Amino acid sequence: MKSLGIGLIGTGYMGKCHALAWNAVKTVFGDIERPRLIHLAEANGDLAEKRASEFGFEKATADWRTLIADSEVDVVSITTPNQFHAEMAIAALEAGKHVWCEKPMAPAYSDAERMLKTARAAGKVAVLGYNYIQNPVMRHIRALIEQGAIGAVNHIRVEMDEDFMADPNAFFYWKSELSAGYGALDDFAVHPLSLLWYLFGHVEAVITDMVKPYGSRPLKEGGRRDVENYDAANVLMRLGGGISAVLMANRAAWGRKGRIALQIFGSKGSIAYDQERMNEFELYQAEGRASEQGFRKILAGPAHLPYDRFIPAPGHGLGFNDLKIIECRELIRAISGEPSSIVTFEDGLRIEKSVHAMAQSFHERRWIEIE
Amino acid sequence: MKSLGIGLIGTGYMGKCHALAWNAVKTVFGDIERPRLIHLAEANGDLAEKRASEFGFEKATADWRTLIADSEVDVVSITTPNQFHAEMAIAALEAGKHVWCEKPMAPAYSDAERMLKTARAAGKVAVLGYNYIQNPVMRHIRALIEQGAIGAVNHIRVEMDEDFMADPNAFFYWKSELSAGYGALDDFAVHPLSLLWYLFGHVEAVITDMVKPYGSRPLKEGGRRDVENYDAANVLMRLGGGISAVLMANRAAWGRKGRIALQIFGSKGSIAYDQERMNEFELYQAEGRASEQGFRKILAGPAHLPYDRFIPAPGHGLGFNDLKIIECRELIRAISGEPSSIVTFEDGLRIEKSVHAMAQSFHERRWIEIE
Amino acid sequence: MKSLGIGLIGTGYMGKCHALAWNAVKTVFGDIERPRLIHLAEANGDLAEKRASEFGFEKATADWRTLIADSEVDVVSITTPNQFHAEMAIAALEAGKHVWCEKPMAPAYSDAERMLKTARAAGKVAVLGYNYIQNPVMRHIRALIEQGAIGAVNHIRVEMDEDFMADPNAFFYWKSELSAGYGALDDFAVHPLSLLWYLFGHVEAVITDMVKPYGSRPLKEGGRRDVENYDAANVLMRLGGGISAVLMANRAAWGRKGRIALQIFGSKGSIAYDQERMNEFELYQAEGRASEQGFRKILAGPAHLPYDRFIPAPGHGLGFNDLKIIECRELIRAISGEPSSIVTFEDGLRIEKSVHAMAQSFHERRWIEIE
Amino acid sequence: MKSLGIGLIGTGYMGKCHALAWNAVKTVFGDIERPRLIHLAEANGDLAEKRASEFGFEKATADWRTLIADSEVDVVSITTPNQFHAEMAIAALEAGKHVWCEKPMAPAYSDAERMLKTARAAGKVAVLGYNYIQNPVMRHIRALIEQGAIGAVNHIRVEMDEDFMADPNAFFYWKSELSAGYGALDDFAVHPLSLLWYLFGHVEAVITDMVKPYGSRPLKEGGRRDVENYDAANVLMRLGGGISAVLMANRAAWGRKGRIALQIFGSKGSIAYDQERMNEFELYQAEGRASEQGFRKILAGPAHLPYDRFIPAPGHGLGFNDLKIIECRELIRAISGEPSSIVTFEDGLRIEKSVHAMAQSFHERRWIEIE
Repeated sequence: MKSLGIGLIGTGYMGKCHALAWNAVKTVFGDIERPRLIHLAEANGDLAEKRASEFGFEKATADWRTLIADSEVDVVSITTPNQFHAEMAIAALEAGKHVWCEKPMAPAYSDAERMLKTARAAGKVAVLGYNYIQNPVMRHIRALIEQGAIGAVNHIRVEMDEDFMADPNAFFYWKSELSAGYGALDDFAVHPLSLLWYLFGHVEAVITDMVKPYGSRPLKEGGRRDVENYDAANVLMRLGGGISAVLMANRAAWGRKGRIALQIFGSKGSIAYDQERMNEFELYQAEGRASEQGFRKILAGPAHLPYDRFIPAPGHGLGFNDLKIIECRELIRAISGEPSSIVTFEDGLRIEKSVHAMAQSFHERRWIEIE
Repeated sequence: MKSLGIGLIGTGYMGKCHALAWNAVKTVFGDIERPRLIHLAEANGDLAEKRASEFGFEKATADWRTLIADSEVDVVSITTPNQFHAEMAIAALEAGKHVWCEKPMAPAYSDAERMLKTARAAGKVAVLGYNYIQNPVMRHIRALIEQGAIGAVNHIRVEMDEDFMADPNAFFYWKSELSAGYGALDDFAVHPLSLLWYLFGHVEAVITDMVKPYGSRPLKEGGRRDVENYDAANVLMRLGGGISAVLMANRAAWGRKGRIALQIFGSKGSIAYDQERMNEFELYQAEGRASEQGFRKILAGPAHLPYDRFIPAPGHGLGFNDLKIIECRELIRAISGEPSSIVTFEDGLRIEKSVHAMAQSFHERRWIEIE
Repeated sequence: MKSLGIGLIGTGYMGKCHALAWNAVKTVFGDIERPRLIHLAEANGDLAEKRASEFGFEKATADWRTLIADSEVDVVSITTPNQFHAEMAIAALEAGKHVWCEKPMAPAYSDAERMLKTARAAGKVAVLGYNYIQNPVMRHIRALIEQGAIGAVNHIRVEMDEDFMADPNAFFYWKSELSAGYGALDDFAVHPLSLLWYLFGHVEAVITDMVKPYGSRPLKEGGRRDVENYDAANVLMRLGGGISAVLMANRAAWGRKGRIALQIFGSKGSIAYDQERMNEFELYQAEGRASEQGFRKILAGPAHLPYDRFIPAPGHGLGFNDLKIIECRELIRAISGEPSSIVTFEDGLRIEKSVHAMAQSFHERRWIEIE
Repeated sequence: MKSLGIGLIGTGYMGKCHALAWNAVKTVFGDIERPRLIHLAEANGDLAEKRASEFGFEKATADWRTLIADSEVDVVSITTPNQFHAEMAIAALEAGKHVWCEKPMAPAYSDAERMLKTARAAGKVAVLGYNYIQNPVMRHIRALIEQGAIGAVNHIRVEMDEDFMADPNAFFYWKSELSAGYGALDDFAVHPLSLLWYLFGHVEAVITDMVKPYGSRPLKEGGRRDVENYDAANVLMRLGGGISAVLMANRAAWGRKGRIALQIFGSKGSIAYDQERMNEFELYQAEGRASEQGFRKILAGPAHLPYDRFIPAPGHGLGFNDLKIIECRELIRAISGEPSSIVTFEDGLRIEKSVHAMAQSFHERRWIEIE
């Protein structure tokens, strides 16, 4: 495959993360053509120039449509706020570009549906940035489950917690507005849902409770404003094959910084994982003498592919940004028509459908089946 | 207060645990009269004699009614299977004895109600054996919450997991019969519910999912039999003051041996605890510089009363059986008319009411409010 | 064997711990005669009466010689300060009693030698209270090593740390006097040495460094006094079979409360243990695929004898005081002439010899071989 | 400062790691000129071409002297086996290049001395690749110590363990030859020594024990060969200010993959760190009520600079390779004449002097003072 020309829209954290990935993917993996970093778009023109220089892009623009019109660009990384995803992704796909869009697809389900429809029509690769599934540890967990290492899975718990909304005295800002979505559910729960999808497939039925730890927040300008969405959500779920699951998401959980804690129980053993210690996982196998059974803490290493492409020695540790490099390699694989491990717009839409069903189950106070 | 005469019914594990407590309570606490171990009842007469000798009781009987009729007996420890609790507790109370009955009160709610009614009529102390609340660490957690150390609590998670039902090839036995109860819910969930009650008061609304990891089990005599109750249960709950909670109970969770994992989130911090490491807990307080904030692992020590009565040095560790000794001291306190920290029949009935509401919410697939 | 008559000298923490063990040993183990708690000695006569009542002893005395002269007493528990051990143990042995003496034997090696000599002459059981070796987890570690679970052991590290001397502003007290011994070395290091002895036999060569974190301490009455011994000691050691070991002992280690951390490396695996979490240990076995190798955290349970005598379910946890009950059972075994797992005066003397050699190696700044 | 022209010698793991750093440093930090990746040298000419393409270098050569002669090259990364460091570094410095050389300087102390002498004469920046000191967590630990967060440090323990030499059945290879050095001491101990140097300055006195867990190893071609150096080393040390330290290094420690465990004890608290969990550390401060004192587990975050340049959210985690990017930034800082945090040839020589003194103290069985 020829070298891909890259366009990047957005230069916030995720923009930088994509830029790091595009810069590193060839050096890490070796077995591809080095991507050419062509065009960077950022609403602020001066910033666009600055970031293009920092990130190593040849051209800069304040108008993302210019980037999409650039014939040298083959793939567009979209890392702007969620409300812009649909318009940009659709334009890029219609211009014949592959798209690598940060999750979620769009706040409105109908927009997400349009994105998928366009991707199908365009016949281009359309991928969502759900990078937690790219962790070599997570890949290995999937392989273990497939190999029957813990037997038939029957129960799952997943918690996603951070604490950036935990301070009741923090000022009201847009994350607490209704227009920003349901709150923890779409801001957070999509990540654990991507893991559940990756490991077990889609959710079939849900009932949800959502809560506002703080009913109102102070305003910078004085006075207070009511919080309009829910910082915490708890969901009972059923997956296929009779698997029961519990999902807990809380962005007001003091002390949790990047926790995505997964517990998987099967007929022959169990697996536990926490994103805050992303370079290890725990495996319990009900084998041998009772006196020596226990959870094994397994450190990430070259036996967990593609850790070996980064470091040849075990126990040295990948970082969060490295997951984006792996995702980038998988995207290139998809563009090359090879089997790849990515979240397509099809998969992403189904994840977002689950989220909307969860919200509905809360408002209607009943179980919702997801078709 | 004069020395109490003790009767003990049942000599299984909990019988032994009560016996150890009655033997040790004076030596540990010093500030009470040494109880006199008078009478032990056990259906098997020979075993009754043997255990009376081992446990240090003066008399033995195969007929528990003889024990209850014994005028030297002031307090009756009831440690028999659950289905006998009601009859024995009622008889003992009617005979003017104080009662220390292992949890739960009774499989049928109506029996539990009769137990409470009798206790009220008798005017005697009637206490349930919910010893996890006696852990000095748990007492300190309660004190911290009361002191506002983590602000206003808004969210709680509690997991109770063991793995004695995790093996799908284990033979069917009575624990899987409908007559044994709902399964994880009453076998297990009452323990975390006692902790929630102890820390926050009673549950107000619930919705539950229950699952059978294994639909049937092999029979010793060949063939298979359908499992009649649920080894796992997951519950969304609301407590008073708008606190949301999630309860997960699973007796088929490979690798978990005595896990009761509690996470408590408040407006100023968080607390985490796991019964498998009962001599420590974690405290996060959102104070000081961000660069030094973290969960503090606090080891049990003499500052966590009444640890000091057992060991004067921190970090040396109490055991599960020591909790029973503390509970025994609290029972004596209650009998003496002093303030005490126990689960009375009133409290216990409310816990069991919650359990029945949970089962109902599962069968009716809807939220149930608990009056 | 007939019921043993028990005498107890000393009613501080270790006195209480012995009393708890003598009270509980029959109930826990069942297969012995219930000991009779005959006589308690405590220098303060009023306190002696009080404690005798609390601990369940029939008689009380302010004169320990009266206790030793009591013909009803078969075994004497000695729990007084170290400087009294020799005189009391020798008197008890000469009076034909068995002796259960808290560690260490005596500050002066010559006194310890006299104790052993007397024990040999008396033909009585003479046991030291080194209860950490009684932990079912530690017993199982020994069994695993003997079974070759980690192959041939080649390297060991052991750390013993507490923080009761960590505060530089704490007043000078007798523990910092030369007459109290070397400091960390004899106050602390004997415990890890008992574990090393239990698992691997005796130390053959040592070189030691000792340090005073604080050269002087404030006096209650004003002014300061020089610290005369060493709160921390570090030792390089060789055991038999070419095993290298490092021993670190520090009683001024902030945050450590009861840490005895053991790491054992062998040709096929490793074992790790920490007394602060005495109900678990870690086992690494170099077997199977690299992708699943890791340290297994194994929770104590009934498979680790005699945990089963206390609790039938795994993961529920023994306490520090329970170890004394196990030690008590082993002592009774020794008195009955059965094989037992105890630290005899022979073993204890060798441990103390090691300690003196360590101190010598520090003062002479050279390796010392221990004959 | 103008853009630096980069030359890289060696394309093994460390070569790749340098290449990743040179590719990423501008994108991560922004505030520098993007380095130009000019020339790559690798003994195998075909591989040189391949890697130059992968790593993004313009030119490739099989002759490292050609690279050093390249006038476009300003900085030379040296990542070849240790025995080539001296010749290459000296040539590069003499050619007027800055040098970034992987640790250690050279197997022979005299070669290391020549390297330093040349660096001084050349007046160029000469830096060693000791990247563990670049961890934001380690930087913060240093800041905490400087700020007095744990008072005056009095005792340190550091363990460095991996298990690549742990299998006794692994074939003999060059790492076990005397020509490869002392074994664990220079292969491993230099890393913890760099941390000790970074935090506390240089070692003043040492006594060392070294051991061979396996006296011989099988040869691929049949038969066995004696192991010529030591897979494990244990060192008692004194640092300045009366600080005592223990260093343990073991490359045959089953189960340890990348452990560098550091324990630091001070007069007001303690700090613990383990490289296997490089995104967290533990801090104990003896403040407040005893009932809430404990080790705080602090997750790396943007408050620990320059974590923020990689990720704006805490708890997400850096990887091992990210440390090299930070080191690269520090190197550029040094070249720009700004204050920087690096290990110069001066510092490195002192570290290697300590290593030789340790070996001497083992062979002479005595304490060695290091001038």
